[in-house]
Amino acid sequence: MPDAKIAPSMLSSDFANLASEAQRMIQYGADWLHMDIMDGHFVPNLTIGAPVIQSLRKHTKAYLDCHLMVTNPLDYVEPLGKAGASGFTFHVEVSKDNWPELVKNIKSQGMKPGVALKPGTPVEEVYPLLDGENPVEMVLVMTVEPGFGGQKFMMETMDKVSTLRKKYPSLDIEVDGGLGPSTIGAAASAGANCIVAGSSVFGADEPDQVISLLRKHVQEAQ
Amino acid sequence: MPDAKIAPSMLSSDFANLASEAQRMIQYGADWLHMDIMDGHFVPNLTIGAPVIQSLRKHTKAYLDCHLMVTNPLDYVEPLGKAGASGFTFHVEVSKDNWPELVKNIKSQGMKPGVALKPGTPVEEVYPLLDGENPVEMVLVMTVEPGFGGQKFMMETMDKVSTLRKKYPSLDIEVDGGLGPSTIGAAASAGANCIVAGSSVFGADEPDQVISLLRKHVQEAQ
Repeated sequence: MPDAKIAPSMLSSDFANLASEAQRMIQYGADWLHMDIMDGHFVPNLTIGAPVIQSLRKHTKAYLDCHLMVTNPLDYVEPLGKAGASGFTFHVEVSKDNWPELVKNIKSQGMKPGVALKPGTPVEEVYPLLDGENPVEMVLVMTVEPGFGGQKFMMETMDKVSTLRKKYPSLDIEVDGGLGPSTIGAAASAGANCIVAGSSVFGADEPDQVISLLRKHVQEAQ
Repeated sequence: MPDAKIAPSMLSSDFANLASEAQRMIQYGADWLHMDIMDGHFVPNLTIGAPVIQSLRKHTKAYLDCHLMVTNPLDYVEPLGKAGASGFTFHVEVSKDNWPELVKNIKSQGMKPGVALKPGTPVEEVYPLLDGENPVEMVLVMTVEPGFGGQKFMMETMDKVSTLRKKYPSLDIEVDGGLGPSTIGAAASAGANCIVAGSSVFGADEPDQVISLLRKHVQEAQ
């Protein structure tokens, strides 16, 4: 099982001070910064796009883990690659026709390709993206409906995580939504190693303690 | 003719330090802050949405002049009203069916309603939105194709500004795209009083001097 990566979700940060918010999270021990890119079409919220990633990249060398909640992910590969994104995770629900091209383009821009599933999407839908000759390198299992921060963790999504972990022992498996001290145990024992956490980190009195706790759970489960 | 309002476009700012960028522009003499909201569907770029406006509002009392380059503006009225937006300018090209509802909702959220036209859209299309019983309070004449900063001013769009100024002497008329020291003369003499300026302000050695110059041109033309 690959290393634990704790990724605070900048959706819960102060968007008017992203540079200092990012630096603060890295100082607190974050491995990645999770960037939620929403277009108001795939989900009923519009957040940030490539111009914001480009500005943030000038202030940090951190791994920018971009989650594309958009209907047309192919359109964002080049802008995000040029902006300095590190990971590019698209949704399987909107890429059934063009994922080979997407993965190829994401890699050619020097980014790590990932695929995400909504809570209602069966895990089998990502197998073709993992079993072919040009596979994605991460699966993001949404543990809430995508669109907004602060939602309640859906325990039933853990079946997908454990199924994936059994089938792909060395795959990066990310969980996103409602993760914190009370839910990390279930996610870690199911096999998740990349942990996105928004409210539970940004809302904490001591975010560094929460980040450490999340990492400890993943390491102990391994 | 109404007062000059100079509105630096935050699309040209450092998005990772929006709070300080906004404060700097207000100190330099800006009247409004122009916020470009793009959804990657109405235009081929995705910028910022309501969560960013909400964060910025916590750091400034400035007038946030929001320009909605989205296909479904009605969906953003409540989120932007709650986030603290001041002006809500939607595009006529995507609101032919529902502009009375849009204007009503924008006003009920305490925002100033405006309508925008792309360079190729005839000026006559906004007359119904100005002549009815619940009119918009600003017209934004795009002087470049919307989507990106740093483009060249289209002089032919000035006919629309002068036509509007003759017909509506007290209307706020805004221009956006390619405005700076070399183009402000044409825009001001055509009758524009709200001036959006991105690259020419943010790229200047002395942004306060550019803002003063833009205002002076509008005042002298009046």
